[in-house]
Amino acid sequence: MNLKDIGEFGLIARIAGQVSHRSGVEVGIGDDAAVTRPTDGCLTLITTDMLVEGVHFDLSMCDPVTLGRKSLSVNLSDIAAMGGESRYFLLSMAVPPSFPVAFLDSFTRGLLERAEEFGVGLIGGDTCSSKGGLVLSITVIGEQRPERIIRRDGARPGDLIFVTGTLGDSALGLEMLKQGEPGAFATERHLDPVPRVREGLALATALLPTAMIDVSDGLAADLGHILASSAVGARLYVEEIPLSPFFREKCTPLTDEALSLALAGGEDYELLFTVPPSRAGEVHPLIARFGTEVTKIGEITAGSGLSLLSEEGLEFTLAKKGFNHFNCS
Amino acid sequence: MNLKDIGEFGLIARIAGQVSHRSGVEVGIGDDAAVTRPTDGCLTLITTDMLVEGVHFDLSMCDPVTLGRKSLSVNLSDIAAMGGESRYFLLSMAVPPSFPVAFLDSFTRGLLERAEEFGVGLIGGDTCSSKGGLVLSITVIGEQRPERIIRRDGARPGDLIFVTGTLGDSALGLEMLKQGEPGAFATERHLDPVPRVREGLALATALLPTAMIDVSDGLAADLGHILASSAVGARLYVEEIPLSPFFREKCTPLTDEALSLALAGGEDYELLFTVPPSRAGEVHPLIARFGTEVTKIGEITAGSGLSLLSEEGLEFTLAKKGFNHFNCS
Repeated sequence: MNLKDIGEFGLIARIAGQVSHRSGVEVGIGDDAAVTRPTDGCLTLITTDMLVEGVHFDLSMCDPVTLGRKSLSVNLSDIAAMGGESRYFLLSMAVPPSFPVAFLDSFTRGLLERAEEFGVGLIGGDTCSSKGGLVLSITVIGEQRPERIIRRDGARPGDLIFVTGTLGDSALGLEMLKQGEPGAFATERHLDPVPRVREGLALATALLPTAMIDVSDGLAADLGHILASSAVGARLYVEEIPLSPFFREKCTPLTDEALSLALAGGEDYELLFTVPPSRAGEVHPLIARFGTEVTKIGEITAGSGLSLLSEEGLEFTLAKKGFNHFNCS
Repeated sequence: MNLKDIGEFGLIARIAGQVSHRSGVEVGIGDDAAVTRPTDGCLTLITTDMLVEGVHFDLSMCDPVTLGRKSLSVNLSDIAAMGGESRYFLLSMAVPPSFPVAFLDSFTRGLLERAEEFGVGLIGGDTCSSKGGLVLSITVIGEQRPERIIRRDGARPGDLIFVTGTLGDSALGLEMLKQGEPGAFATERHLDPVPRVREGLALATALLPTAMIDVSDGLAADLGHILASSAVGARLYVEEIPLSPFFREKCTPLTDEALSLALAGGEDYELLFTVPPSRAGEVHPLIARFGTEVTKIGEITAGSGLSLLSEEGLEFTLAKKGFNHFNCS
């Protein structure tokens, strides 16, 4: 059974039938617009991401359930990076008419599983035909009290720079997938990243970071965004970049190219944040209770630009810059 | 100059540079998520629409400025149909790398012109590469007090059915465009619909409609949505359907096929609403002050289903059903 057999309204009914009521939703799927009730004293956070077949994902490399999870995860990661709590989301899909309904059912299952896991409710969206491949657009709405929202522009000279988890696994996983090596830890990290939702919320509740971003374009590029917004510079110690045992084993010896994968490879979906030195001791206990690693990797400096320093104190030069959706081949 | 020459961040910077600050926006373009401040006592309304090249628009038939306006208009129409006030929007675009930047600049100009016209601020979005054609996804966020929000499920037997403006022009315009007849009133109505933003808000403020929807799938299909949601039926008088002088002249004699275009052709973006008979007299004065027509076209009945009645009281049969994005050739 293909999409053209059930039509637009058939697809919407199939998805809507799986959505349970969630508090705060006054009108869900099925009217001209969704209606939600803002929580008293909270601001609204809104983020959106588009995922395009052949650009962000390749149907020969990913299964639909995992694609569903990832489509939502990348947006949850953005809300987490603001210190927000994700509440609702909208799903839009442009789908080729010949697309199998079974794929869409599995995609929806993965998406709603992840939504359930993080307490986020589907409240609307749009479906239409695509003349090209599958195009997904997800918008997530979150909430947070004003004082807890963490922007990119609050980093100050002397602040220490931390990152959760390990870096480079996703970029390595993508390389492995391209070379036909599925199923390993790194490919899993690429195909099914887990957003640091609880970690972001805990950091926000503790009013700990002065600036935060999620690592989607690559560590160097995303730290660059914080530096530009905050009008500061930074020193990163390349040896301090957290690497998984899998990454270290696969990339032995640890060449500059491999390190560049960890520094500039995108889609890690880890949280990168800055903390005043006086409060640096609070970071590890706060994050460790989620079973998540957290590593100090450098510090904010006066001035501008990012210095990457190797063990010997020498300048490290990246093998390539962060992922640019338009330049990548 | 093509998109690949300026890249993703170049495109974002080009758009962001044209956006002015708007009240209620705490964080706009350029962080992980946008942040807005809800108005006290208001609920949040959210709607999203995807527009796909080759499905919803054809670049050989529309100019980019008009496409920009329409992309926002169809979403503003959805918020208007809930009685809401549009406040903010997000724009996502999947763009072929070879796409000319001049087109995107014109598109953005049209989009931001319409946004300015209706007091709506661009607060975020996403840009990425497309392997197929241009894909646009716009999400609009609005607000309204709970008692003023108008859903689809409030129509009651005896309520009178009204529609703003005239119907069928857009569908006629699309046919004319396909036959290479540009520039006329009907093609303008198809390419550049004006959402009934002020009319929707006035109706909501007067607490007048019991149910409301915008006519995007065609009058019969959209009235069908109200009937299904409200668990009622309706009688429509085919002769009462408001037709423009242009439509009447172009479609002389007025065949059943032409009437079907007015009853089932989509994309009119007029407001279709129901009003208790005791308050029907308030409708015309309320809408007329915007220079907009409004016409009583039928009434809600007990039971279910839509009866289309011709002048002689006979059942009228539609030549085709409302637009279905997946079935249309």
